[in-house]
Amino acid sequence: MLLHLSTWTEVESYLKQSQGIILPIGSTEQHGPTGLIGTDAICAEAIAKGVGEAASAFVGPTINVGMALHHTGFPGSISLKPSTLIQLIQDYITSLTRSGFTKFFFINGHGGNIATLKAAFSESYAHLSDLNIPNADRVQCRLGNWFMCGSVYKLAKELYGNQEGSHATPSEVALTQYVYPEAIKQAPLSPDVASGHPIYGAADFRRRYPDGRMGSNPALATPEHGKQFYELAVKDLSNSYLEFLNAE
Amino acid sequence: MLLHLSTWTEVESYLKQSQGIILPIGSTEQHGPTGLIGTDAICAEAIAKGVGEAASAFVGPTINVGMALHHTGFPGSISLKPSTLIQLIQDYITSLTRSGFTKFFFINGHGGNIATLKAAFSESYAHLSDLNIPNADRVQCRLGNWFMCGSVYKLAKELYGNQEGSHATPSEVALTQYVYPEAIKQAPLSPDVASGHPIYGAADFRRRYPDGRMGSNPALATPEHGKQFYELAVKDLSNSYLEFLNAE
Amino acid sequence: MLLHLSTWTEVESYLKQSQGIILPIGSTEQHGPTGLIGTDAICAEAIAKGVGEAASAFVGPTINVGMALHHTGFPGSISLKPSTLIQLIQDYITSLTRSGFTKFFFINGHGGNIATLKAAFSESYAHLSDLNIPNADRVQCRLGNWFMCGSVYKLAKELYGNQEGSHATPSEVALTQYVYPEAIKQAPLSPDVASGHPIYGAADFRRRYPDGRMGSNPALATPEHGKQFYELAVKDLSNSYLEFLNAE
Amino acid sequence: MLLHLSTWTEVESYLKQSQGIILPIGSTEQHGPTGLIGTDAICAEAIAKGVGEAASAFVGPTINVGMALHHTGFPGSISLKPSTLIQLIQDYITSLTRSGFTKFFFINGHGGNIATLKAAFSESYAHLSDLNIPNADRVQCRLGNWFMCGSVYKLAKELYGNQEGSHATPSEVALTQYVYPEAIKQAPLSPDVASGHPIYGAADFRRRYPDGRMGSNPALATPEHGKQFYELAVKDLSNSYLEFLNAE
Amino acid sequence: MLLHLSTWTEVESYLKQSQGIILPIGSTEQHGPTGLIGTDAICAEAIAKGVGEAASAFVGPTINVGMALHHTGFPGSISLKPSTLIQLIQDYITSLTRSGFTKFFFINGHGGNIATLKAAFSESYAHLSDLNIPNADRVQCRLGNWFMCGSVYKLAKELYGNQEGSHATPSEVALTQYVYPEAIKQAPLSPDVASGHPIYGAADFRRRYPDGRMGSNPALATPEHGKQFYELAVKDLSNSYLEFLNAE
Amino acid sequence: MLLHLSTWTEVESYLKQSQGIILPIGSTEQHGPTGLIGTDAICAEAIAKGVGEAASAFVGPTINVGMALHHTGFPGSISLKPSTLIQLIQDYITSLTRSGFTKFFFINGHGGNIATLKAAFSESYAHLSDLNIPNADRVQCRLGNWFMCGSVYKLAKELYGNQEGSHATPSEVALTQYVYPEAIKQAPLSPDVASGHPIYGAADFRRRYPDGRMGSNPALATPEHGKQFYELAVKDLSNSYLEFLNAE
Repeated sequence: MLLHLSTWTEVESYLKQSQGIILPIGSTEQHGPTGLIGTDAICAEAIAKGVGEAASAFVGPTINVGMALHHTGFPGSISLKPSTLIQLIQDYITSLTRSGFTKFFFINGHGGNIATLKAAFSESYAHLSDLNIPNADRVQCRLGNWFMCGSVYKLAKELYGNQEGSHATPSEVALTQYVYPEAIKQAPLSPDVASGHPIYGAADFRRRYPDGRMGSNPALATPEHGKQFYELAVKDLSNSYLEFLNAE
Repeated sequence: MLLHLSTWTEVESYLKQSQGIILPIGSTEQHGPTGLIGTDAICAEAIAKGVGEAASAFVGPTINVGMALHHTGFPGSISLKPSTLIQLIQDYITSLTRSGFTKFFFINGHGGNIATLKAAFSESYAHLSDLNIPNADRVQCRLGNWFMCGSVYKLAKELYGNQEGSHATPSEVALTQYVYPEAIKQAPLSPDVASGHPIYGAADFRRRYPDGRMGSNPALATPEHGKQFYELAVKDLSNSYLEFLNAE
Repeated sequence: MLLHLSTWTEVESYLKQSQGIILPIGSTEQHGPTGLIGTDAICAEAIAKGVGEAASAFVGPTINVGMALHHTGFPGSISLKPSTLIQLIQDYITSLTRSGFTKFFFINGHGGNIATLKAAFSESYAHLSDLNIPNADRVQCRLGNWFMCGSVYKLAKELYGNQEGSHATPSEVALTQYVYPEAIKQAPLSPDVASGHPIYGAADFRRRYPDGRMGSNPALATPEHGKQFYELAVKDLSNSYLEFLNAE
Repeated sequence: MLLHLSTWTEVESYLKQSQGIILPIGSTEQHGPTGLIGTDAICAEAIAKGVGEAASAFVGPTINVGMALHHTGFPGSISLKPSTLIQLIQDYITSLTRSGFTKFFFINGHGGNIATLKAAFSESYAHLSDLNIPNADRVQCRLGNWFMCGSVYKLAKELYGNQEGSHATPSEVALTQYVYPEAIKQAPLSPDVASGHPIYGAADFRRRYPDGRMGSNPALATPEHGKQFYELAVKDLSNSYLEFLNAE
Repeated sequence: MLLHLSTWTEVESYLKQSQGIILPIGSTEQHGPTGLIGTDAICAEAIAKGVGEAASAFVGPTINVGMALHHTGFPGSISLKPSTLIQLIQDYITSLTRSGFTKFFFINGHGGNIATLKAAFSESYAHLSDLNIPNADRVQCRLGNWFMCGSVYKLAKELYGNQEGSHATPSEVALTQYVYPEAIKQAPLSPDVASGHPIYGAADFRRRYPDGRMGSNPALATPEHGKQFYELAVKDLSNSYLEFLNAE
Repeated sequence: MLLHLSTWTEVESYLKQSQGIILPIGSTEQHGPTGLIGTDAICAEAIAKGVGEAASAFVGPTINVGMALHHTGFPGSISLKPSTLIQLIQDYITSLTRSGFTKFFFINGHGGNIATLKAAFSESYAHLSDLNIPNADRVQCRLGNWFMCGSVYKLAKELYGNQEGSHATPSEVALTQYVYPEAIKQAPLSPDVASGHPIYGAADFRRRYPDGRMGSNPALATPEHGKQFYELAVKDLSNSYLEFLNAE
């Protein structure tokens, strides 16, 4: 169930039975010569919709731009500053807590969001405790990173071994190929891909990773793989969501 | 052309010929008993995609949540504070200016965003002038509100007269019906709809407009009307975009 | 009645009968070769005092500096960033709501303030709803732009036709001549005045509008015109204020 | 010379000979049963105008609202938060430094502003050093508190002894009587006035100082005293300004 | 070498040979009935001093208060909001980059700081790239969490097994006993310690973890263990620091 | 009693008898060729510990970095922006008020902190009044600057006359020599030391005060003097603390 395709009266009814909502968050950033700029948002959104269906839960609008400052040396990348993203998350949670939601399950498609999201959860709990909103002290946030699901990780290892890499990976590219087969890209990929460098600022990142990939070979991706990753992630995260919803 | 379905190398090529980008911005807010919570984002996104195709321009990711604080008395509404939205817009523009973009055309689906967007443009121009980014002083932002296009306004008057109202309007509902025919909602709508009240805070708004509509009769909407609105808005805003792109 | 010329005990008495206050806001910005830098503040202040007398209402201190970032390419202009102005307005409203005021009528002399003021009102309503102040949820703000009063607009058209322009206009210059006849300026004004350009950043603005005027011929202004504008604006805005005060 | 009664071309000419500007800052706060709410702004503005004339210097628009949080328990008081005032001061200084001003002389009428102004100067110097503005590293701010001028202090002691007190003092009340003789207030003043308590929050302040005065007897004030205070302050601060202007 | 026990001329000399600095960061938060409130700062500071000696590197002043909002339900705990900590870290890094430092090695004693520190590093890189500071684009930050060193982890498992827990652990308590043997505390510790619950807001945390411990048995700690942990951590982090310093 | 060497249960017990806490705040900044960068923090911390013992009061963790922007032209100096320091102080006070503390006594070692601390106290009182914390409206902050104690000032005059100066003074250097005799520095000090200049930005400060001293001759300092200063300051501030604690 998509929040965007529902009415406020439907939300009102839903809230009588569940206070949980799924919020997909991605990023808008370079994913190498063949990966889509929207990869992280596309994956998070698709999986979140799947989880929402499987778990009969509302799925909020996708947060398309996250924390990708280190990618902004490549054209087309957009990033919020961490401090902006913290405010954004706090505004989302505050609005929805006023509605009556108390369980926020973020399905995340981008490793670079994790630290800021965790900081945002802490900031939001403290903020809510200062407001006069019923149940504000019962608010709980949880982070579900699809690419860190055990089953996903295992399949990626099986299919790609160490060519999975850590950015512009074949697994995430495969998932976007499954979702948007009309947008499968071809480009020469040097076998000599940079890897293992730490991440600092944007200019430094581009120097170290000249084509944007981090140790990955996305040429291995296929839409069929993408379907497998999708199904595994939906299954794992549906379980996580329901466990979260039912926990005290 | 969707930024999210492109690669950074495609963006790099595009920037050699154009520095323009279209950014759809909507809202996540109640739209009466039959209007979708995502109405404003859905309309902005659909029209932006149409304009992007018509004008061969990149369309960035949709900003799904805008400034809708006055709607947050209704469940399911999410709003950024104006100060958060200003930071968000500044972060978007700063990132994309680093990429080389200088012409930002926002296609907007929500009247409540207009004031904050204008404030954000001013804040961003001043911010950019302090940075060391080439062409930062050439950055220009323009706002295209689809529902204020002359042709759209005229058709709404013809079809609905004063039942168009000013929120949860049949014209915007029609457009969402055209885009998502699977999500057409039915609910009893009182003919006695509130209208003409000023807008203050969220609790006050809900008192004045108990079902969320502002003077509108969305039951008049049809998907066919939606198609007409869509085509008129795409045509008008494509012209606006190209005029903006080519202007000094 | 000027707040600044009153005591706190007088305010305490007033509040038993009225919770309304008028807040003049102007700007400190270039107004062409003959317009005063304080034009917008002078006009707003003079009219606010007139409305305060006519309506027996308190008039707060003039906000002399507003949102004029696009004028800061001309010496003597001062601007707040929109985000600063939002905080300022929120601080004013919060302080006065603690006093017991709930109806805030801003008499505005500068078009560039409008967007940020509207954003500030939204931000303030939400902020107040989080505090423990009696009647905070009854706070209402309204914006009265003197130059947009119907009668003012009509007179300007009659007197100046399309030489009214949109910045450093003869109507606002006339009003300052009426208020400060000792500060009437003379300078050669090219008949070839720029007009019709959009507004972006400060450097761009100065390039497009080299002497600061936007399509106006302020040489047409006279103090007698100013008196007429003053009286029309006071009458119109007094009515608006009283209507606002008495509305639910 | 008032900035508000000048044109940008006059400022441009002035800047060729002087880069100094005087900025009056007051407060909007209770001043006891007979003191005007605008006392601090009225005094700062009047003296600043006098200094501007004496020193042939531009006087900017009065900052009417300062840091008076501890007075907001009394109706009619308005305060900025310190963090807002810091941003406001930074915005003023940044705008005027872009114009070419480098010497900022603040004539202050309120003790409660001092700490925040000093903090704001520090914040502004650091901010300016990050921008690309010519002469930004030559910017200097100085604070002139009229009530702390040696000659003013001496006269207050002579006239009022320990009945001068420290808030709603006869000296400042006298000065407002001189400037606005039409707004001289009468009210019974208990001889048993609170004094010597430290200042904490607003509710605490009102408990300790029930009528708003701090150890003062403003009934001693006369307009003639006010004239003397005015002239002493103008003389002292004119010297201070010129010394500041000519210093390296 | 402690920055605090050095002069600016000594720093100037050092910078000719090294641009690295070690910054200890802890927390001020409850650590169960027997753990010191300063545990995380004490551990980080002691180890940082050891690493500074081993690696001939400057050690900056300890950041004693970090991100511990979830502990603020227990008396004595102090926390920065994540957004405050981000600004603090940015201010530290900006100041020291102006000095000429470019390699920032944070020795951290608190798991709750990790997310915010990572967010702060990203925010700082972007901030620095906007300034005119030489070498700002060469700034690198690295995080060394002493409790996550392989050798430390291994020893804790050997000594305490699953009684190590995850907060108020015997390993960190042991380290504080080694550093401050005069402050070893005794208190009855229930063998029935809560563990395995997720972390949300402060009130929730105290409900789930009534005595503050998370699955740990700090009664197992001894000063001798503390010495071992200290030596292992110093050795591991000295290697990490030198590797970081010498890396490109 | 050091908060850092205590447990939360000890704090809980203490709060039943006292709600006072001492918070030392220093700075990390150049102190001339022979003064330690940590001088202000070292002095504040040592004296605070002494006062804590004398008055049986808790002493919180030292705030090692304060407002020293004007010193950042010298290597090794670290400063918070005033706006950051305000947030930090507010976060400290808010956390500890939740614990039950209401009397905050800041022992300060740096003149440059005073303005920002005062601003922070005002900001914090207002912030607390908006929260739902018991006793928040009873919170009181007081500032104890050790170098401004009457007895300290008198001794410095006796020992050093006008060679005390105003930065890198022999009195503060002496105190650090007493606390850290192992870190007594020797360096040639020109007798021709700058003094009497106002303080503006960092680059300007370094130009005016090339070796960092302001009119001082720290070569006069001895550890024995330091002991005297320490004892005088502890005595004076212990009295101040107890007076503050017992005052209404």
